[in-house]
Amino acid sequence: MVKALIFDVFGTVVDWRGGITRQAEALFRQHGIAVDPASFADAWRAKYHPSIGRIRSGGRGYVPLAVLHRENLDAVLAEFGIGADIGPDERAEFSRAWEKLPPWPDSVSGLTRLKERHAIAPCSNGSIALMTWLAKHAGLPWDVILGADIAQAYKPQPEVYRRSASALGLAPQDVMMVAAHNRDLFAARQQGLRTGFVARPGELGADQTTDLEAESEWDVVAVDFNDLARRLEC
Amino acid sequence: MVKALIFDVFGTVVDWRGGITRQAEALFRQHGIAVDPASFADAWRAKYHPSIGRIRSGGRGYVPLAVLHRENLDAVLAEFGIGADIGPDERAEFSRAWEKLPPWPDSVSGLTRLKERHAIAPCSNGSIALMTWLAKHAGLPWDVILGADIAQAYKPQPEVYRRSASALGLAPQDVMMVAAHNRDLFAARQQGLRTGFVARPGELGADQTTDLEAESEWDVVAVDFNDLARRLEC
Repeated sequence: MVKALIFDVFGTVVDWRGGITRQAEALFRQHGIAVDPASFADAWRAKYHPSIGRIRSGGRGYVPLAVLHRENLDAVLAEFGIGADIGPDERAEFSRAWEKLPPWPDSVSGLTRLKERHAIAPCSNGSIALMTWLAKHAGLPWDVILGADIAQAYKPQPEVYRRSASALGLAPQDVMMVAAHNRDLFAARQQGLRTGFVARPGELGADQTTDLEAESEWDVVAVDFNDLARRLEC
Repeated sequence: MVKALIFDVFGTVVDWRGGITRQAEALFRQHGIAVDPASFADAWRAKYHPSIGRIRSGGRGYVPLAVLHRENLDAVLAEFGIGADIGPDERAEFSRAWEKLPPWPDSVSGLTRLKERHAIAPCSNGSIALMTWLAKHAGLPWDVILGADIAQAYKPQPEVYRRSASALGLAPQDVMMVAAHNRDLFAARQQGLRTGFVARPGELGADQTTDLEAESEWDVVAVDFNDLARRLEC
């Protein structure tokens, strides 16, 4: 039995797209801005991979994800032509929308159950701060916050998985990475971790075509976190 | 109002002396060893300050406290003349006694109440691993684990306090250090943190002469964690 479960968060534990869309909608309504908030959410998120890619490739030193979110917000506001409507203070505040995302319906109950027999922690590219305030908002009962900040690196860099295990004093095989993204699990398995896949077919909206199912023989494949708990208790 | 409360742990949140004494007593009984377990606990703990002192002074690179506990266990077993009785596996296991310490009676209820309005975290010289497993054992409802491992340094080095605040994305004045040790609070205040003192007159046994009361005008002085919660709610 694994001793700890570490989780991808954006998409796996919380609904980033729904949460950002609703917060953008409220902001745009307030300013009378006619922009589709879901398209805005997608555009903001689309800048995520290129911006951490630069850090992963060594083109930039490690900075916490909140810094990238803030920079990318400026860029995406400009792209949508609404840069002039929203001032610096409001941008700083709205940039923290990533701390106010809703959990999937099974996340809190599933994590609470998994916590009885395992240490549970996020292994996200979000920083300690972002993960802490998000957990307070969403009621996520983590034992400890692991992930990018601990390793000062971004997934799928190997050290993020390895350091998350070693920070708990555990060997990689005593830790299971749980994610809704096959790519995350390939990288974790490469470092010797166990793997658990939970599909989140609603992450990218109704048209999602990726990560609808397990693309490898992961150690556990579950339909949600409660199902994951049941399977691990067997 | 401060946004986060960070806590010294050994002595402030958990009864290390009582916990180590009882676990040593059980081990010695099993082996028929006639050593006073409380004296043994004191001797083990007495090696703590010199061993982290070497790291603080730069004489040794940062290693987690569990490594020091394990090394110091060898030394103290030798001093008590019982080195031959206890083998390597048993030493490794017993060295983890620091993960199995009892909370003070008010710790869990007080922390649970404080967690409603604040982020709460250990700011201990214990590592992430030690703090995580101790919290699982004692039922401590931390939001996140901060402290020595995050800073790769030992209190009272300034970076441990500063990094614990910055890891939460907070300015020092938005964070309160809570401790039963005046020395810890002097160091935290020096870095701009708020300070909360809770005396633990039973930490060192019936003969305790130190830290029986606040030695400065700390921001809050409380008799226990529930009292601390009441005072912060005013």
